[in-house]
Amino acid sequence: MDALKADHSQGQRDRLIHPEVPEREQIEAGARAAGLDITFTRPVTDHAASDAAGDLLGEEDKPFWRDHKSAKVNAIRIKTLIEQADVVVVRFGDKYKQWNAAFDAGYCAALDTPYITLHDEDIVHPLKEVDAAAMAWATTPEQVVGILKHVLRD
Amino acid sequence: MDALKADHSQGQRDRLIHPEVPEREQIEAGARAAGLDITFTRPVTDHAASDAAGDLLGEEDKPFWRDHKSAKVNAIRIKTLIEQADVVVVRFGDKYKQWNAAFDAGYCAALDTPYITLHDEDIVHPLKEVDAAAMAWATTPEQVVGILKHVLRD
Amino acid sequence: MDALKADHSQGQRDRLIHPEVPEREQIEAGARAAGLDITFTRPVTDHAASDAAGDLLGEEDKPFWRDHKSAKVNAIRIKTLIEQADVVVVRFGDKYKQWNAAFDAGYCAALDTPYITLHDEDIVHPLKEVDAAAMAWATTPEQVVGILKHVLRD
Amino acid sequence: MDALKADHSQGQRDRLIHPEVPEREQIEAGARAAGLDITFTRPVTDHAASDAAGDLLGEEDKPFWRDHKSAKVNAIRIKTLIEQADVVVVRFGDKYKQWNAAFDAGYCAALDTPYITLHDEDIVHPLKEVDAAAMAWATTPEQVVGILKHVLRD
Amino acid sequence: MDALKADHSQGQRDRLIHPEVPEREQIEAGARAAGLDITFTRPVTDHAASDAAGDLLGEEDKPFWRDHKSAKVNAIRIKTLIEQADVVVVRFGDKYKQWNAAFDAGYCAALDTPYITLHDEDIVHPLKEVDAAAMAWATTPEQVVGILKHVLRD
Amino acid sequence: MDALKADHSQGQRDRLIHPEVPEREQIEAGARAAGLDITFTRPVTDHAASDAAGDLLGEEDKPFWRDHKSAKVNAIRIKTLIEQADVVVVRFGDKYKQWNAAFDAGYCAALDTPYITLHDEDIVHPLKEVDAAAMAWATTPEQVVGILKHVLRD
Amino acid sequence: MDALKADHSQGQRDRLIHPEVPEREQIEAGARAAGLDITFTRPVTDHAASDAAGDLLGEEDKPFWRDHKSAKVNAIRIKTLIEQADVVVVRFGDKYKQWNAAFDAGYCAALDTPYITLHDEDIVHPLKEVDAAAMAWATTPEQVVGILKHVLRD
Amino acid sequence: MDALKADHSQGQRDRLIHPEVPEREQIEAGARAAGLDITFTRPVTDHAASDAAGDLLGEEDKPFWRDHKSAKVNAIRIKTLIEQADVVVVRFGDKYKQWNAAFDAGYCAALDTPYITLHDEDIVHPLKEVDAAAMAWATTPEQVVGILKHVLRD
Repeated sequence: MDALKADHSQGQRDRLIHPEVPEREQIEAGARAAGLDITFTRPVTDHAASDAAGDLLGEEDKPFWRDHKSAKVNAIRIKTLIEQADVVVVRFGDKYKQWNAAFDAGYCAALDTPYITLHDEDIVHPLKEVDAAAMAWATTPEQVVGILKHVLRD
Repeated sequence: MDALKADHSQGQRDRLIHPEVPEREQIEAGARAAGLDITFTRPVTDHAASDAAGDLLGEEDKPFWRDHKSAKVNAIRIKTLIEQADVVVVRFGDKYKQWNAAFDAGYCAALDTPYITLHDEDIVHPLKEVDAAAMAWATTPEQVVGILKHVLRD
Repeated sequence: MDALKADHSQGQRDRLIHPEVPEREQIEAGARAAGLDITFTRPVTDHAASDAAGDLLGEEDKPFWRDHKSAKVNAIRIKTLIEQADVVVVRFGDKYKQWNAAFDAGYCAALDTPYITLHDEDIVHPLKEVDAAAMAWATTPEQVVGILKHVLRD
Repeated sequence: MDALKADHSQGQRDRLIHPEVPEREQIEAGARAAGLDITFTRPVTDHAASDAAGDLLGEEDKPFWRDHKSAKVNAIRIKTLIEQADVVVVRFGDKYKQWNAAFDAGYCAALDTPYITLHDEDIVHPLKEVDAAAMAWATTPEQVVGILKHVLRD
Repeated sequence: MDALKADHSQGQRDRLIHPEVPEREQIEAGARAAGLDITFTRPVTDHAASDAAGDLLGEEDKPFWRDHKSAKVNAIRIKTLIEQADVVVVRFGDKYKQWNAAFDAGYCAALDTPYITLHDEDIVHPLKEVDAAAMAWATTPEQVVGILKHVLRD
Repeated sequence: MDALKADHSQGQRDRLIHPEVPEREQIEAGARAAGLDITFTRPVTDHAASDAAGDLLGEEDKPFWRDHKSAKVNAIRIKTLIEQADVVVVRFGDKYKQWNAAFDAGYCAALDTPYITLHDEDIVHPLKEVDAAAMAWATTPEQVVGILKHVLRD
Repeated sequence: MDALKADHSQGQRDRLIHPEVPEREQIEAGARAAGLDITFTRPVTDHAASDAAGDLLGEEDKPFWRDHKSAKVNAIRIKTLIEQADVVVVRFGDKYKQWNAAFDAGYCAALDTPYITLHDEDIVHPLKEVDAAAMAWATTPEQVVGILKHVLRD
Repeated sequence: MDALKADHSQGQRDRLIHPEVPEREQIEAGARAAGLDITFTRPVTDHAASDAAGDLLGEEDKPFWRDHKSAKVNAIRIKTLIEQADVVVVRFGDKYKQWNAAFDAGYCAALDTPYITLHDEDIVHPLKEVDAAAMAWATTPEQVVGILKHVLRD
């Protein structure tokens, strides 16, 4: 149960890292290199597994219901991670719609869970509402690590 | 102050209608035709005015800060509308990113404010997380009116 | 929109009356006869209409999804009513499963919305958890009216 | 105090397993077999002990008050378990009324604690409100284990 | 339903006045004389009626259960009044135990509902915890009116 | 009771205007001139009366306790105003410490009540934490009116 | 810091035991004898120390302010204990006013923290409101231990 | 990650110590000398580092935005510390504006997190609102240690 594991004996809650795989690995490597004592958590990021999360509950003819069941099963994990996280990082790119990422940001905002957005400058305008409620906007994984280092300095 | 007005003397809270102009007008017309006693509210939907909401607070060289200020000013309105709404309708289309719409849906979900999504079938998959937390998925304004009629029947 | 109407100008919130039709009518008539100034609200109690609440959103082959859609649409109404109610009356009988009634009672309990159960003595044992969190157990509509009279006396 | 024990040093909160004995044992065995690091909790499931929970506080002539006292004592345990659980599994069968199970599901729904229902297809209709607010509907203990495996995958 | 009536059209929530009859009448008269636009509410203060609130639900052999039922019925009213009140006045005297008054003060404190205590100087010591969480300690009804006048001045 | 009056029959909650007298009057006049339908509320701004709010409860030898009693009595009003406000305006100047204004801003931030700061540029640095959680920073009363006009436009 | 210590690594939150010394020791001994794995916490029960809690902050001429300061200092401890407790036991006797005990019970009730009352039968009537919101009424420390044993059984 | 570390395995939450360096060190030394088992946390108190917290996210021409970014990054830390703290100590001096300290006090007050103020007598009047919501006012670090000793006594 690594994904949901927060090391409470160390006084931390989970840190949910939302971005796509390459950036997340850079953030985790950077945090390790900096000696930061952070537990990283994330949603299921194997897209095929995520899309099929509800298939074991029975087949569906309509794509909507297949998606519906899988999204709900995945939400059991994501919802708990967000509610227990100290900081959430939300990654936006130009290629995908990522409405789920924006949805999670809104969820964080309503729960007062601080989140950092990670995206390039060219999508600043369509993300203005999401950025307005964020605690920081970063353009590189290194900046996210830098923020974590500052926040956790002794 | 029509936009923020809920007729509490009639025992209703606001209904925030989020969709783009054409659909919202159809929903409001349909509700009126059905004799439904609903107060419709909405964000500022004049895009130019919305983008310029923070300009009166001073010019900004960087687009990020202009957007930031405007998004925060607009959020004063949107946040209050969502928190007071009985039902929110969130419209998604294929053309725009509409991360703000997904953000608002996440905000509703965290606050337990019921919301209805309004979108075509071809974007069911990228919206699966947003739909999973919704109370209904409609494809036409008439369906939204139909839901409101059912919910408000005597 | 009578069903959702609370007369806030009179300082009351809704009273949600959940029981089946005959008892609810007796309670409402009793309250009127006693001159009590109460707004009664209720879920959609036309069973066929309630079961078909989601049909306008498209047909379903599987009964589960038809039920699912209708239950969610109905929940928009029920959820708001319970959250705004001062007192909820939950009716249990021997004939039906009424898991929705018990579900609503649990929802009330978690929200600290006071509720009164209305049921015969022969089902006291299976209802013990539901009754334990209730503010009163009544066996007749007249008793419910009597409680309302006491609670609202000058 | 095994029943209430969550291993916080491992970053998990309790998992409350509500179903009748045979299914719960299957779920626990399946989770162990899959190497899942889960703490299972449950209400007191010795029915006689549960019904007698309040007897030490004095005898009662009326069955209602005996039930009342026992249900309240049991609620000390159940309430805490539900509030601390990450996921609740609620089992429904055809034989019993199980209003307490539906009550617990409503309690979960109001607290935003995710729950999974476990029941056969033939009671889909009377459970539609309970299923509508659930994160998944399973028909076998193996499916519940499957969901837990997915939710906890690395 | 005068007792529960808040005049929301005037923008006020209830004011719950808890003290015994003589002091409450002095406060209300003083407020009227000062032209204060306040809605006063209170628990049922006819002690015999209050003690008998649950009697219509059936006779009880044990005094504990008679008290239990009546206290719960009365709590439907008191709980709602406290949750909706802007200010609560809690009166303590030397003669009675008034554990219910202290209970209500604790309830106010947990809900952040401001309350004023009204009692003589000779019971300052046993009331120190109750006074510590109060917004003011008054010794006369005139002082309570004075506070209300200040709080409501233009 | 004008100060606490929100015209709920018009669907608005209070707007608490915190700034010193000259600016508040400019904001109110500007809002009236713009035809905005806003209810303005404020703390007691007669400083002498505010400082003496607790005097009627008895004299104090120590200034601390005189201040303590008055601050608590005033808090009955301020607390209610902030909790019911849609928007709070907090004014900072160079002359005074105004720790109460910063305290109120922190209270707003924790309650998610949107607030606007009104102050000159020369105190931007010491106010950075207060501004960071605000929805807007204005330097003139006209800008505050401009924000309100935008937020309330049809 | 034993008094505030909850052994989270064992998955338990504190248990606050409120009764006077003799009963508390009986409950703790009984729990130990029964092998219950419970962390007991309590307010400062050295009355002289409790009354003098604020003395180090400076002398007071008026008994009210000495009590006020001490009660607030003690509340730092009590408030945290109650908010973290799984179960609170509140003891009432005939000799003292114990308004603080009733205050704590009201605080528990508003926070939905389960509490058990411990008192003799002769004060059932004045405690009816406090008992009505309790999860159990016990007359002996042994009964409290019995409830804890049941609640924690495997 | 020492700064954010609470030793949950010891059942304590963080204690956030807010005062300037000299006083904080005295408090921590005093607590150690007294054998108190407390985890002290604090904001980043290296002023230059704190002011530059956002610089890694890009340069800003306007001081306001530099401050804005840094304040938000710092708030990730402070906000979490305050929400997890059992007790917060807020230090005020005569030299600085310390609006952030007052802001944090207001944040604590709204969250019901107990806080102690630490300041000299000559600023009692401007701090009256902040002190009114505090659990204690101390003038020396020794007094703060004394309060902690009392609160944590066995």
